[in-house]
Parts: sequence; C-alpha cells; structure tokens
Amino acid sequence: MHEITDEVREAVTASGLRQGLCTVFVQHTSCSLLIQENADPSAARDLERWLDRTVPDGESFYAHVAEGPDDMPSHVKAMLLPTSLSIPVLGADLMLGRWQGVYLFEHRRAGSTRHVVVRVGD
Amino acid sequence: MHEITDEVREAVTASGLRQGLCTVFVQHTSCSLLIQENADPSAARDLERWLDRTVPDGESFYAHVAEGPDDMPSHVKAMLLPTSLSIPVLGADLMLGRWQGVYLFEHRRAGSTRHVVVRVGD
Amino acid sequence: MHEITDEVREAVTASGLRQGLCTVFVQHTSCSLLIQENADPSAARDLERWLDRTVPDGESFYAHVAEGPDDMPSHVKAMLLPTSLSIPVLGADLMLGRWQGVYLFEHRRAGSTRHVVVRVGD
Repeated sequence: MHEITDEVREAVTASGLRQGLCTVFVQHTSCSLLIQENADPSAARDLERWLDRTVPDGESFYAHVAEGPDDMPSHVKAMLLPTSLSIPVLGADLMLGRWQGVYLFEHRRAGSTRHVVVRVGD
Repeated sequence: MHEITDEVREAVTASGLRQGLCTVFVQHTSCSLLIQENADPSAARDLERWLDRTVPDGESFYAHVAEGPDDMPSHVKAMLLPTSLSIPVLGADLMLGRWQGVYLFEHRRAGSTRHVVVRVGD
Repeated sequence: MHEITDEVREAVTASGLRQGLCTVFVQHTSCSLLIQENADPSAARDLERWLDRTVPDGESFYAHVAEGPDDMPSHVKAMLLPTSLSIPVLGADLMLGRWQGVYLFEHRRAGSTRHVVVRVGD
C-alpha cells in the first residue's frame, strides 16, 4: 500500500476548485485504490496480510496462469477493492476524515508504472 | 446495518436539484456505506453474519491490536465494502431500484458518532 | 460476467460530452458492476470461480432463504462488488486503461432483465 493522499490533494489545489467532487481512478486491473487509516502503518500491513491469506497464489482452479502465479490473485484482489474513489471537496480540500488516507494498493509482486487519473469537477 | 435512505433522500430534496449526481461519503475507516436489499431485514442480518464469519476477530497475525480485538477486523471490512456511493438523481429523487436501500454499516462493536457527507451536484 | 463496455461508451458518445464524469449504476442488489481485464476471457471465468467458492450457496446460517438457495449468496457477492462505477471522460471517451472493460456481473443463476443507469456530466 502506497499512500498518495498528498498527490491527490495537490491535484485538487491545482484545479482551483473550492467546492465539488474529486474522482480518483486507476487504469489497471491488478492494483486498486483504497481509503484507509493512515495513522498507524501496522494497520496497512495487516490489511495486506489478510488479503494475501484470503486470496492466495496458485489456486488449483485458476485457468488464467500465463502471466505468472501472482497475476490471477491480483485480479481477484482488484475485484474486491475499489478501482475508483469519489471524494467530496469543500474549502478547496478533500473532505477526508481525520484518519483517512488515500492509497494505491499494488497487488502484483513486481508492479510496473501505474497511472492514476484525478478528476475534479463542480 | 442502519438504513439511512430517508436521510440521503432528504438531502437531495433540500438541494433543489432535479437532475445530477448524489455522492455519499463516510469519513471513517471502520464503518462502510452499502446499497442493499431493504425489503426483508433478514437479508441484512445474513450479510452481517457472513462478514463476521469471513473476517473474524483475533486473527493471530494481526499486529495492529492496540485499539481492541474488533478494530482490525473493522478495517478489513471497511476495505471490502464501499466508503463512497455514487447515485444518479432524476426527477429530484435518487434513481434507486425498487429494493435498494442505503445503509451505514457499522463494523465496531461500540461505534461512536459517525459523519456521513452527502454531496449533490449537476 | 457480461461485457457492456460498448454500451457505456455509446452512451458517452450520444451525450456529446467531451470532458467530465461517467457514472454507471445498477438498480439491483443481486448483481454488480465491475471493471476488469477484457483481454483474456479465462480471467473472467476465474473471477467467477473464486467468488463461487468463497461465497457458496446454502450456508447453514442463512435465514433469508425464501427466494432460493442462490439468492442470499447473490446479495453477499453484491455487497463485495461495486453497485456503481465512476469513470472520468476525456476527448469524448471513457478514460479506461488498455486492458479494462466494463462488466455486468450477474450473481443469480437465472437472472431476469437488469437495468443499468449511465449518467454523464461535466
């Protein structure tokens, strides 16, 4: 889990919009976006562990295996977690709660460059 | 699961908007929002039971345990369920299907006050 | 999983909007929407298999059984997968990644007609 709250916030600031809606969208099917607790890093590690145990590599019933043993589990995780986030904007800032941070959740073992779209509108 | 459909609908009505988009956003990381069947309360109870069984308290691998045994499971549930909902508005009303209701899904055993943002725009 | 990317794209084209936000919303509680890999059909089959195994029919604790053994599992799957999608629009097209397709994910064994709302706004 890689925190991207500052990058999303900067996009909102750069837009000059004071009030509206921020949409964050990831253009991939083997990673996710997530809003989660950013106070204690141990929470993020536990989320990763839970997901790895619930969606293990190498299930015998997987037919889609050409891209490696961690590819299909990555698609399953991307099915369960968000591809897009909708965050209201007020006072030129994201209306996040006190403990909420925005994360890119990489599901591949060796993820490549990821593209995240931040769209701001009123 | 606490139904909040009427509260969200009232916010749409109060906005005076006839057509557009309603975004519902919860500012916490240990509860969720959910659109689910509101005809029969037994469906909501079964959803809660399924989630409690799939995400039990006290997993041995949890490191984030300082806030109690039901804290980390609450974050896992909040990872799996929505933090925000996007509902189209038409004719000054939410375009919900006949059986759809909007819920706040509390994951802590003793949840405190929760803040839900309802944003309406065209 | 039924791919509906073309239908959503046609709605965006028909709207004449060049830049903005596309919201896709399904008015049911026993099917879902999903953005997933559309290059290799075996990935979609594996996602279905994973979900069927993780959310099996006939759990002994289900109380909501009046509508058949596949009804409550359908609600659970609809709890875990999206009811709405938010996709930015640029250049009059959906900003989907190269491998992303939009799917209606039917969870009932014999699903009836499903209604999907596509809302486009700037």
